[in-house]
Amino acid sequence: MPAALEELIEALRVLPGVGPKSAQRMAYHLLQRDRNGAGRLGKALDAALAHIRHCSRCNTFTEAEICERCASPARDPHLLCVVEMPADLAMMEQTHAYRGMYYVLMGRVSPLDGIGPRELKLDRLLARATDGSVQEVILATNFTNEGEATAHYVGEMLRARGLKVSRIARGLPVGGELEHTDIGTITQALVERRVV
Amino acid sequence: MPAALEELIEALRVLPGVGPKSAQRMAYHLLQRDRNGAGRLGKALDAALAHIRHCSRCNTFTEAEICERCASPARDPHLLCVVEMPADLAMMEQTHAYRGMYYVLMGRVSPLDGIGPRELKLDRLLARATDGSVQEVILATNFTNEGEATAHYVGEMLRARGLKVSRIARGLPVGGELEHTDIGTITQALVERRVV
Ligand SMILES: [Zn+2]
Ligand SMILES: [Zn+2]
Repeated sequence: MPAALEELIEALRVLPGVGPKSAQRMAYHLLQRDRNGAGRLGKALDAALAHIRHCSRCNTFTEAEICERCASPARDPHLLCVVEMPADLAMMEQTHAYRGMYYVLMGRVSPLDGIGPRELKLDRLLARATDGSVQEVILATNFTNEGEATAHYVGEMLRARGLKVSRIARGLPVGGELEHTDIGTITQALVERRVV
Repeated sequence: MPAALEELIEALRVLPGVGPKSAQRMAYHLLQRDRNGAGRLGKALDAALAHIRHCSRCNTFTEAEICERCASPARDPHLLCVVEMPADLAMMEQTHAYRGMYYVLMGRVSPLDGIGPRELKLDRLLARATDGSVQEVILATNFTNEGEATAHYVGEMLRARGLKVSRIARGLPVGGELEHTDIGTITQALVERRVV
């Protein structure tokens, strides 16, 4: 097998869920049937690596130092909503029931995957939450075991600094994830958040 | 969502079997947890596009005008074995029972996918098989419906030019594919090939 083909097959395995067989299938497909697509993907990877970073305030993916949402004067600076992933933030926004700020963890506490508070860089969340503008932190992590553990840990950490911390209501089914929940349920859970 | 991230998610969908949800998961994973891997994949795509082409004799992927196998004086130039994909060629080689040349179709006749003799560029196989050196063409396409139809079509085409055409024996189970067959069975099928 030519070296450049072997390396492409190996390199495709950096994608989550892609094993040796499907990497080979993907490489053949790209080289044989979609060289334009392969070129587009190569360019997209380069551009994303060059331009995408984490917002210095909310930690979500952005092309600027501070993302548009964090820079917007229309948002309520006294509320800070903590979510696991950008997709969760997008779901919160779709409720149109929240006009505060966000912090995106980009993950959740997950001992089995070796992801603890340090890997999540929770000191950055702490710095953001204690910058003087935030009056209430709303924990909107998932109601999975890992999401609950994350909320518990973050809640303890922030309450120890004297912050008011709330948790969105358990309107979501146990084990449910924001990304797979209907907007109405998320709205209700937001409205019914309780101080913890 | 930042434009470069949106484009990366869209671009990942050129990969076969990757839908919107898994493209998003892949993009997040690369940007958040494996930027080195993303860079490696981008480079591998560029290098493969720049260096990988089809061997002008056997049509397999190669970095040279003519691949090593086609250029080797140790191979028997009188035998030409036709396979569907490079993975099939690799299986044939593992039998150590064949020392002739190959032609890789890079596909099979598949009316449902709109792939006919023209899409497979069978005129290139015809030119290769009638270049004066080949005395027998061994059809080693899969024993699937599509592989059988391909063998039938190719056999008709080559016999019409006066070539001797054989088919590897139906030692493989019906519906079987070379890539998923044990080496012993493939060896037997090769030895028992019959003129058709
Ligand atoms: Zn931000
Ligand atoms: Zn060749």
